[in-house]
Amino acid sequence: MSTPARREITGFSNPTVKFLRSLRDKKIRRREKKFLVEGLRLLTDARETGRVPEILVKAGARDPHPLLDELEQAVLDGGGEIIETSSDILAKITGKENPQAVAGMFAEFDTSLATLRRDAAPIWMVAQALRDPGNLGTMLRTCDAVGAGGLILIDECADPFSVEAVRASMGAVFTCQIGQASWEAFSVWLRTGTGQLVAASLRDAQDYRTAPYRAPCFIMVGNESRGLPADYEDACDLRVTMPMRGRADSLNAAIAGAVLAYEVLHALER
Amino acid sequence: MSTPARREITGFSNPTVKFLRSLRDKKIRRREKKFLVEGLRLLTDARETGRVPEILVKAGARDPHPLLDELEQAVLDGGGEIIETSSDILAKITGKENPQAVAGMFAEFDTSLATLRRDAAPIWMVAQALRDPGNLGTMLRTCDAVGAGGLILIDECADPFSVEAVRASMGAVFTCQIGQASWEAFSVWLRTGTGQLVAASLRDAQDYRTAPYRAPCFIMVGNESRGLPADYEDACDLRVTMPMRGRADSLNAAIAGAVLAYEVLHALER
Repeated sequence: MSTPARREITGFSNPTVKFLRSLRDKKIRRREKKFLVEGLRLLTDARETGRVPEILVKAGARDPHPLLDELEQAVLDGGGEIIETSSDILAKITGKENPQAVAGMFAEFDTSLATLRRDAAPIWMVAQALRDPGNLGTMLRTCDAVGAGGLILIDECADPFSVEAVRASMGAVFTCQIGQASWEAFSVWLRTGTGQLVAASLRDAQDYRTAPYRAPCFIMVGNESRGLPADYEDACDLRVTMPMRGRADSLNAAIAGAVLAYEVLHALER
Repeated sequence: MSTPARREITGFSNPTVKFLRSLRDKKIRRREKKFLVEGLRLLTDARETGRVPEILVKAGARDPHPLLDELEQAVLDGGGEIIETSSDILAKITGKENPQAVAGMFAEFDTSLATLRRDAAPIWMVAQALRDPGNLGTMLRTCDAVGAGGLILIDECADPFSVEAVRASMGAVFTCQIGQASWEAFSVWLRTGTGQLVAASLRDAQDYRTAPYRAPCFIMVGNESRGLPADYEDACDLRVTMPMRGRADSLNAAIAGAVLAYEVLHALER
């Protein structure tokens, strides 16, 4: 017998509730390859880019909304399941005291380098050992804004499918491509095609306003505390630097990436 | 009898421990006008800009460090107090499982507009109803990087003296000026001197790359979800817009501010 397309869950100990809740744990998310997205706005962004949740959870008391109707229809058309529950249980699942009235469970996307279409865009962003999921989501949002193909995560980074990263991406997790790879695998992949690797750097670097950018341009930023390893910088085609007029010697990683990405966008469109 | 300059505290229920711990609560921080800073690096940044904690708390087992010695001397010279305690108690105070080995309590700075020296810098940043302390700290860090005078917080913003904002500022909370005011008070203050108010906007706006910026330039960004109120935008001398090549219609507030600030820096130095 197949799972019914709609059902009501009223108990905290229901196995589906427990499963959905467990997806807040990175280790479990990684094993199950599923992730949670909260809120009608993000879920609608997802639907409009062709991504529909496998399970849609909604808190019963919600007012009717045409976007919610369309979302429910899309879930049913896609063979997914709709669960009606209480606000308390939805809060338990999402771990937020005042949860949005809907949440959806998606299958994680394939993030292997082989899936990336490098010719899809003139700009790509690359983050190395980025630890903060908010920074990661913000970088995805910036990718969308500058028309970048997406974000490639090098070495051990925060999880792009964590609730924090998805939220900070403001839907860009669905519109941008995401790659995950070791530095070695990325280096091999990069050099099998055209592509200029550019590092935001302080060492042996050109002024970021006059550097000769070429598409497809891969803009790489390093870890929040340590920056890029020296040998990664050495492997870049271009090292560029931004003015630092104050006491500090670095910018937040997502800020550095965005200032550089807007400069590259301008240079390539000039 | 005055408070001894050095003492050891071993109990969680010690009143000073309880008081320091209570400063993580915004309401108490506001009433007491004190805030906490964690870590030898930030505390050293503070000392180098002439700010010394009133109370320095260190976990006993710490290795000797010349910067810590200098910090302790500065605290004693400034009439402050040094408390030696356990890692567990320091963790309790800072609310972090693996705390830095030192933390300091500072008196909050005066953030009234009257204290701001507008001629100190060609760029100022202004944030309206900014809710996220991480964004706020990141904007302070960007202020430092572009040589801005500081950050002016309009209407109800996150607290610049929260642990999250101080941490994200990477010490810029000590190097940049901070102002707090209502929109009305800010508008009056701004127009009593020279200053160009520039909004990042989508409406009736010029290209941010060619707009006629003038020093002192006040760059204003709005709330993370709602952007700037329309009448605030109307009151600006210049509305500028950045390219948005994707699906979304806005950038993260700290990102928009930084991209704009680097553009203004370039334009003013040209």
